[in-house]
Amino acid sequence: MGFSFRILRKDSSSRARVGKVETSHGSFPTPAFLPVGTQGTIKSLTPEELVEIGVDAILGNTYHLYVRPGHETIARLGGLHRFIHWDRPILTDSGGYQIFSLAGLRKISEEGATFQSHLNGSLQFLSPEKVMEIQRHLGSDIAMVLDECVPYPSSYDYTKSSAALTTRWAARCLEATREGDPAVFGIVQGGTFRDVREESAGDLVRLGFQGYAIGSLSVGEPKSTMLEVLSWTTPLLPEEAVHYLMGVGAPEDILEAVRFGVDLFDCVMPTRNARNGTLFTSRGKMSIKQAQYAEDGKPVDETCSCYTCRHYSRAYLRHLYLANEILSSRLNTIHNIYYYINLMRHIRETIEDGTFCDFYEQHRLRSSENGTESSAQIQSPPG
Amino acid sequence: MGFSFRILRKDSSSRARVGKVETSHGSFPTPAFLPVGTQGTIKSLTPEELVEIGVDAILGNTYHLYVRPGHETIARLGGLHRFIHWDRPILTDSGGYQIFSLAGLRKISEEGATFQSHLNGSLQFLSPEKVMEIQRHLGSDIAMVLDECVPYPSSYDYTKSSAALTTRWAARCLEATREGDPAVFGIVQGGTFRDVREESAGDLVRLGFQGYAIGSLSVGEPKSTMLEVLSWTTPLLPEEAVHYLMGVGAPEDILEAVRFGVDLFDCVMPTRNARNGTLFTSRGKMSIKQAQYAEDGKPVDETCSCYTCRHYSRAYLRHLYLANEILSSRLNTIHNIYYYINLMRHIRETIEDGTFCDFYEQHRLRSSENGTESSAQIQSPPG
Repeated sequence: MGFSFRILRKDSSSRARVGKVETSHGSFPTPAFLPVGTQGTIKSLTPEELVEIGVDAILGNTYHLYVRPGHETIARLGGLHRFIHWDRPILTDSGGYQIFSLAGLRKISEEGATFQSHLNGSLQFLSPEKVMEIQRHLGSDIAMVLDECVPYPSSYDYTKSSAALTTRWAARCLEATREGDPAVFGIVQGGTFRDVREESAGDLVRLGFQGYAIGSLSVGEPKSTMLEVLSWTTPLLPEEAVHYLMGVGAPEDILEAVRFGVDLFDCVMPTRNARNGTLFTSRGKMSIKQAQYAEDGKPVDETCSCYTCRHYSRAYLRHLYLANEILSSRLNTIHNIYYYINLMRHIRETIEDGTFCDFYEQHRLRSSENGTESSAQIQSPPG
Repeated sequence: MGFSFRILRKDSSSRARVGKVETSHGSFPTPAFLPVGTQGTIKSLTPEELVEIGVDAILGNTYHLYVRPGHETIARLGGLHRFIHWDRPILTDSGGYQIFSLAGLRKISEEGATFQSHLNGSLQFLSPEKVMEIQRHLGSDIAMVLDECVPYPSSYDYTKSSAALTTRWAARCLEATREGDPAVFGIVQGGTFRDVREESAGDLVRLGFQGYAIGSLSVGEPKSTMLEVLSWTTPLLPEEAVHYLMGVGAPEDILEAVRFGVDLFDCVMPTRNARNGTLFTSRGKMSIKQAQYAEDGKPVDETCSCYTCRHYSRAYLRHLYLANEILSSRLNTIHNIYYYINLMRHIRETIEDGTFCDFYEQHRLRSSENGTESSAQIQSPPG
């Protein structure tokens, strides 16, 4: 249904590349960051604001939309794009990560995953075929296969058998696709075990997907481990396919992953941090509630051109945060998503003009001066 | 400082009139409804959204801004308009109502009001001179005198002595004004006692203000009592001055009050109701959480042209409300303020073309079919 991916430019000093994803809801350049619209809204923002910020595509959560308001309801209302008033591409995850992180009791069997809804405790069941049906009903542009996300740390045996199960589920997802369905991405599992990652990637590539995600990262492992796994895994994927690092992450993690050839990212970090009053700036992170900003008339970041920085002072943002005003979440979210979108734009520009390596080094230096934050364990918000 | 009021058209069948208020931050037509920006923001909206809706002027709360972030801080940051990024007129109340409704312990003396901050319980003191200083620091366009708001019911003796105190405070407010200060409005007190209202209005008119508010209404009295008090009080005010009914109200109350010659209104009803999922429509109020809207693809009001009604279904608004999403408050607030602004536009248009009486009767009929809500006791939100 109109999905394609083309690589337009490769970096000479790393595996970084600039590409273009086409979907029936329009195209977008990669490397790209997709803000997370868990429940059918990027928390606090309208679609028009996302477009103004420069967001090309968003992520929707299959699990959340399945338990409320329900995929059939959304289908009857014309699909997710129409329901939420967003006409650009939507990638939907499969729900695997939310079953792992949100559900109460859960039981994984060959057939699928049985779990308790985080909303009301009711028993639910998702199979590979069901998640494809849900994503079809949502009218997603890119659908993810059902996978089992393994925690960190996990034993070798469990990780290996779980990865094999994810591969069998992935095959069933492919089997279940119909004419007109979303593009389908497989998910490489294997935890921190190199041979399991190799086996998983090899099996999935033989099945043949339009893109490949690297799953079970950013689930609590040290950052060095995440990068090591990434360094093994991306070379196992077809170069011409989309490479997607789910749930990542911090700006510095994104930069590292781009070097390994990752094209797509999603993370709640910019939006969740915004609501907690933490802002990304060219000089590192800023906690807007600090007393030092009480009478600071400067914008959050004097080098930033976002709506928030053009019109509001740190003092006002601090006031809104302390007063628990809704506008606080809005203005902070606009700024943080703009920061991410701008970062991705810089990444693409520097790959295109051959200066990505310099950009990476500068950013890394600045990050080490300012302190960093791992994206581990900050995926997918509850409810 | 550039304040004036002109009456442009009078209704032949009632005391309703269309006027124009000019301030140094621009002019606006009356009858006008001012959304309430308690803590330096109309909850959930940006100034640009207010302008798009058609809001000409807003209200700020002296009490709230005094206790946080403080009027001196706002002054150092360039005044309230700059602080909140709003360049149109701002009316600030005096804090009297909030001292009455929010403060813990409070003690009224000849000198002023001592009260406990609702934020941290600290003891605060506001005098007539102090509230003028605060409103000067905020850079308000229209300042209100400090008044004592009396509860309903109150004894005759208390109401009478309280109204006299408000008048003495009003005189001190006038004394305290300086060149370049905001326009100052007096506040008629007197509870439900006609002779006290007459005495209060007479005294204030002799002092001479640029506008007159009618205080201590919408504090729990029956609606019929509110209208009766209004029917006595507006004729006591100079015709050529602005008449302001503080804290009112429901659409039907506004229509009634316009008939008595009221020019200005403010109320938290549209914004607070929005956050609670209650929407104003041409067919009455709608509680968006109701199950009947779960798959309802229609807009809230098919006759409405607001941003919310142009792009979103009842089903989506219900989903956002149930999911406790910030966008729910935003979209509902846009709709409700638009409803009020549109109502005021219709009021002015029908006064101008001589059909106000018909408009009033139609609206009243519809209200009695749909059930009504008094605006009593819904003034000024805590924190």
